Amino acid sequence: MIPIRIAQFGLGPIGLEALRLAATKPWLRIVGGVDIDPKKVGRSIGELTGLASLDAPAVFPSVAELWHHAQPDVILHTAGSRAVAFFEQMREVVSRGASVASTCEELIYPSLLAAELSQEFDALCQQHGARVVGTGVNPGFVMDLMPAFLAGVAREVHGVSVRRVVNASTRRQPLQAKIGSGMEPEEFRRRFNDGRAGHAGFRQSVSLIAHVFGWALDEIVETCEPVIADRPVRTGFFEVAPGLTRGLHQIAIGRSQGRERIVLDLTMALDEPDPHDHVRLESRPPLQLTLNGGVAGDDATVAALINAIPRLLAAQPGLRLLSELPVAAPPQSSA
Amino acid sequence: MIPIRIAQFGLGPIGLEALRLAATKPWLRIVGGVDIDPKKVGRSIGELTGLASLDAPAVFPSVAELWHHAQPDVILHTAGSRAVAFFEQMREVVSRGASVASTCEELIYPSLLAAELSQEFDALCQQHGARVVGTGVNPGFVMDLMPAFLAGVAREVHGVSVRRVVNASTRRQPLQAKIGSGMEPEEFRRRFNDGRAGHAGFRQSVSLIAHVFGWALDEIVETCEPVIADRPVRTGFFEVAPGLTRGLHQIAIGRSQGRERIVLDLTMALDEPDPHDHVRLESRPPLQLTLNGGVAGDDATVAALINAIPRLLAAQPGLRLLSELPVAAPPQSSA
Repeated sequence: MIPIRIAQFGLGPIGLEALRLAATKPWLRIVGGVDIDPKKVGRSIGELTGLASLDAPAVFPSVAELWHHAQPDVILHTAGSRAVAFFEQMREVVSRGASVASTCEELIYPSLLAAELSQEFDALCQQHGARVVGTGVNPGFVMDLMPAFLAGVAREVHGVSVRRVVNASTRRQPLQAKIGSGMEPEEFRRRFNDGRAGHAGFRQSVSLIAHVFGWALDEIVETCEPVIADRPVRTGFFEVAPGLTRGLHQIAIGRSQGRERIVLDLTMALDEPDPHDHVRLESRPPLQLTLNGGVAGDDATVAALINAIPRLLAAQPGLRLLSELPVAAPPQSSA
Repeated sequence: MIPIRIAQFGLGPIGLEALRLAATKPWLRIVGGVDIDPKKVGRSIGELTGLASLDAPAVFPSVAELWHHAQPDVILHTAGSRAVAFFEQMREVVSRGASVASTCEELIYPSLLAAELSQEFDALCQQHGARVVGTGVNPGFVMDLMPAFLAGVAREVHGVSVRRVVNASTRRQPLQAKIGSGMEPEEFRRRFNDGRAGHAGFRQSVSLIAHVFGWALDEIVETCEPVIADRPVRTGFFEVAPGLTRGLHQIAIGRSQGRERIVLDLTMALDEPDPHDHVRLESRPPLQLTLNGGVAGDDATVAALINAIPRLLAAQPGLRLLSELPVAAPPQSSA
């Protein structure tokens, strides 16, 4: 078995954790990293991850410099939520024929916000034999791929609703910040309306579901309200006084011909009790699924990224959707 | 959109229901059927299904006669549980370049019992560009594909256990018979040991899971005990006196290096309360999923068969496993 050569683009907390997981997989070989942060460029991945086995591969300031030293088969991209920025960052990578698995939220359904660019990027991928996919836990699994998978045993599906409750106290600092921890409620609302707070990729989850079920949506409506602390809340990163924001309650609804086809309901808050995910298909037969305890945090995110690699390489070249990838990886890559 | 032309091989209750579902899908066109039963040969599918729209396509006594009148792209096969018999029945079909989706239980992991034949059949499929897959609810979804799918968000998986409880009172007569309804317990045990009763495809589910996780199993141990009625039970097909069999409790365990890696635990019985499916991965993060109410019956079985068609046609030619198919169908085929 020849290992798949990978390089990491973006060496923040998720990127480093993805590398730590990749280092445990005999079917992967880490050959380098790319980051624009001058404090990281030139250092070894071993130093950044704390894994002595990764002392050789280094961090480069650009894709071109990385390629000068190593030619990865796959880039793991964990450097942003925006599809348009992703295309810009990865154009050179796919032009070199390498594939990309990314946590970029908008890439779950890139043509929602960037239809023409997505088509161009897809053509570029096909031209060079590259495969690209956006993956993750949410978006990418619980609230979109799971209902699509479940529908495999439904004769017909008329509606989808998913409710997800996350206890953010167990999560990393950036996520606790993103949900507004410690903010004045009005400030949180302002930031959400400016696109500077809230869960990213929600409309893309709605779009992926609509795509899989062949529903032409008339509109996607998204709302977000702060969840207010009624007693003091403290995490490793935030202290929240009563009356301030301890999280968010975000809802996205997809309507078709005046009817609510898709309802996604997400609560992410500090000290939130009873985390779980609940998926319901209005279908024949009716189908209802609960993930007890939910899908926990960043471990699952890096797992989704690493597990996507062999599934992506088994798919056709192009800009792919998660629903087009095989259900599971070939066996050599899942031990 | 050019519809996919399908023909049905085996016109029993499941085959007829698959045709009724297929008739509702604009992306499918039913072109004929094959059955060896002289009471069905020569009749129209409209007559057998009760659907006037299917008056033209007819039932033929053989694949050769079917092809004389119509050339389907895909055969739906619902005529038996044994992989070896399936290969025999479908050799001519794949030699003509048509693909096959089947409810044959052993086809969930055909190489368990027929490794060499599976390899030959795979080569034959590839030679003629045909795609073949076995599908269903169990085996094929709840107890095998579901844990494989769920593992997409796990960093590592050390063990899988699935518990399925089915209330067979709501199911068709052949299933109620298969679980021993109304039998003396000793008679049921004898029949199970002779392979004439019990849930088929259980070892294949274990094998598919082991394959996906890259586990080399030392042994698969299967046990089955009757569930005894403690009060009278009556269905549309059976009356069971106290002390007689109202169902089965079947367990399959996959061991690797002395350790139980896979435990599948199935209860199917008349008047069984609280039907549900519970999937647990011993993994990081730990993952636990419950299908509340379970996946109900024959509706789901024919759905699994029909939904497999576009997913199968999107896969590479060959004898495929369900885990190799895309998560969801392309959109035109799922509305």
